[in-house]
Amino acid sequence: MSTEEFLQANEQYAANFNKPDRSLFKNMIIVTCMDPRLNPYEQLGLKFGEAIHIRNAGGSAKEALRSIMVAQHFIGVNGTISIFHHKDCGMSRVTTSQMRDLVKKATPGRDDVAAEVDTIDFHHIVHIEGSVKADVKFLTESPLVLKGTKITGWVYDVDTGKISKVDEAIAVGA
Amino acid sequence: MSTEEFLQANEQYAANFNKPDRSLFKNMIIVTCMDPRLNPYEQLGLKFGEAIHIRNAGGSAKEALRSIMVAQHFIGVNGTISIFHHKDCGMSRVTTSQMRDLVKKATPGRDDVAAEVDTIDFHHIVHIEGSVKADVKFLTESPLVLKGTKITGWVYDVDTGKISKVDEAIAVGA
Repeated sequence: MSTEEFLQANEQYAANFNKPDRSLFKNMIIVTCMDPRLNPYEQLGLKFGEAIHIRNAGGSAKEALRSIMVAQHFIGVNGTISIFHHKDCGMSRVTTSQMRDLVKKATPGRDDVAAEVDTIDFHHIVHIEGSVKADVKFLTESPLVLKGTKITGWVYDVDTGKISKVDEAIAVGA
Repeated sequence: MSTEEFLQANEQYAANFNKPDRSLFKNMIIVTCMDPRLNPYEQLGLKFGEAIHIRNAGGSAKEALRSIMVAQHFIGVNGTISIFHHKDCGMSRVTTSQMRDLVKKATPGRDDVAAEVDTIDFHHIVHIEGSVKADVKFLTESPLVLKGTKITGWVYDVDTGKISKVDEAIAVGA
């Protein structure tokens, strides 16, 4: 979509705009991949305004931690944190080492870029259920996550549209 | 929503599941805030499968860079990167320093947590249009973003549902 198409679609949206229900804002946090095959509003039946939604390559809980801290400590979200990874994820088809090589090949002769990219952890995924469980464990044990927070871990199947729950834990806090 | 409600809503979704059109997958990248008032599918008229969507507190392009690199260098996305920040954003109402204090107060006596949180840049926003322009500039000048990528910057108004474009540039690359 071009700038003009964004503006045209948004004009129609704004013409019938209704603000979401404020009482829903602090209900929950979901973390998913950036993959275009994921649309949690449809796939989980989320209402407008119901979820703080964090997305990044792979759905990494580690990278999401800054946002989770803002949601819990500043905004006051007190509900469940749900982590969704998905089958056929790009991050399960490339490693951190391979990502570094790809970027270096695209920037020949730039030693500064090579040095910078060598500091980046791309959070690649070796095993989909294992990565969900590792992320649930990371949040459960992090002192930066509020004690008592319920953490659930899920896998979304891009071929069937189905979710399945693979883990659940309660954050131990600081 | 509880685990049971996720599963119930998803069961209905999966019963009528259709895979998205693969030809859309590499079209564009959008970066937005995690705020529950943002739903780009509705607000921009996005089709299912049309956009790689990265979300974090504030819609920070800096934090999105790892994901953008995966999208461009591995997945092969060659379209526009659109950055959306929004009015009344939580990240414009709290500073990095205030976030650090909030976390320290919630974890008394934990010097290790205090030391860790002092290393985190919370990417707070001083001026909404200024922050969009700074993020467009950051991506435009980053050698980690592919040369020639069109970068657009937008503000979403949570009170009216309207978007407005505030910046546009072409990435200079490595």
